[in-house]
Amino acid sequence: MTRKGLLLILSSPSGAGKSTLAKKLMTWDPTLRFSVSATTRSPRPGETDGQDYFFRSRPEFEAMVAAGEMLEHAEVFGNFYGSPKGPVEAAMAEGRDTLFDIDWQGGQQIRNSALGRDVVSIFVLPPSIAELDRRLRTRGQDSDEVIAGRMAKSRDEISHWAEYDYVLVNTDLDQTFDELVTILRAERMRRDRQPGLAGFVRGLNGEFEAR
Amino acid sequence: MTRKGLLLILSSPSGAGKSTLAKKLMTWDPTLRFSVSATTRSPRPGETDGQDYFFRSRPEFEAMVAAGEMLEHAEVFGNFYGSPKGPVEAAMAEGRDTLFDIDWQGGQQIRNSALGRDVVSIFVLPPSIAELDRRLRTRGQDSDEVIAGRMAKSRDEISHWAEYDYVLVNTDLDQTFDELVTILRAERMRRDRQPGLAGFVRGLNGEFEAR
Repeated sequence: MTRKGLLLILSSPSGAGKSTLAKKLMTWDPTLRFSVSATTRSPRPGETDGQDYFFRSRPEFEAMVAAGEMLEHAEVFGNFYGSPKGPVEAAMAEGRDTLFDIDWQGGQQIRNSALGRDVVSIFVLPPSIAELDRRLRTRGQDSDEVIAGRMAKSRDEISHWAEYDYVLVNTDLDQTFDELVTILRAERMRRDRQPGLAGFVRGLNGEFEAR
Repeated sequence: MTRKGLLLILSSPSGAGKSTLAKKLMTWDPTLRFSVSATTRSPRPGETDGQDYFFRSRPEFEAMVAAGEMLEHAEVFGNFYGSPKGPVEAAMAEGRDTLFDIDWQGGQQIRNSALGRDVVSIFVLPPSIAELDRRLRTRGQDSDEVIAGRMAKSRDEISHWAEYDYVLVNTDLDQTFDELVTILRAERMRRDRQPGLAGFVRGLNGEFEAR
């Protein structure tokens, strides 16, 4: 039956497992579309334009915002980040869901946009701050100062947990992933996401008439 | 983590599989509480008071309604049916969910009651009216007239499908049951059904403070 695409927003402090969960979900359902963000920050080694981010200059980014091409955008650590609107609308029209790996500012803007009704938002919490710290350190590529900055950002991010539809505590990755899949499957079964139902019920009524 | 009990309402035309699904769900999760309806109709052979229904006289039933002890009630085929409120509130306070096997009238009243925010409503449709007819006839204990009456009631019931949060088409019982379980599991993960989260996040903030 035809379905209306939804917008699945995944937010969490850095190190809580959000990106790993997002990657697993994309493998679980290849029809999902991942929303690639645009950013004005410089590419890191190994990052590809159009895959990890759309890398844009500040004037280019500002022109996209001015043209209404951004579903949301925000400044973080002096760089702009945003979600281009066009690909999201195209996916929805095809009945495909879009996955957003974004922070609370982006989540808030999309919820308050014209597409807010189609949003399913999930916040992932770490089991503890000690564990969050450990996960950030074992990445091993950042200085103490960078980690301290991330922890401050994490605290700010966590303060917005109550704005989300669902909250998961990521103690065990496999269990949290199972919960994530369960939420997505259930949300797809909502009546208002199944535009084909009206026609199906008309068919049942036709059968009643013909008796 | 502590949880706030929800009210799971299952409605469908007779023969669409609702009662079978309800029974399977009670086996799947023994902590679920099944809402036993009160009724003024006579017990059928094999039915037990307090288990299948609370069999009450008309004056007794009317006294319960007058005392505000019914969450919902309605008259169907000349008999009253209703859901006693006390056991539902007791279950919710314990963090247990209550399952209702009721019709659209009951569903509407509970959604519009003070407990409406805690309702998750699911409508089960048959794959076709021919199949609905077949399932009603193979029960083998009812006359054509009774079946014709049920079919008219079914059509009325189906006309309310769009009032429900979720709609399932019961083509395959195992698949529909899996969908039902998925919805229940996801709804339990909603932020506003997990009152323990606020305390958990306070704990995370305490960890930040202590750093």
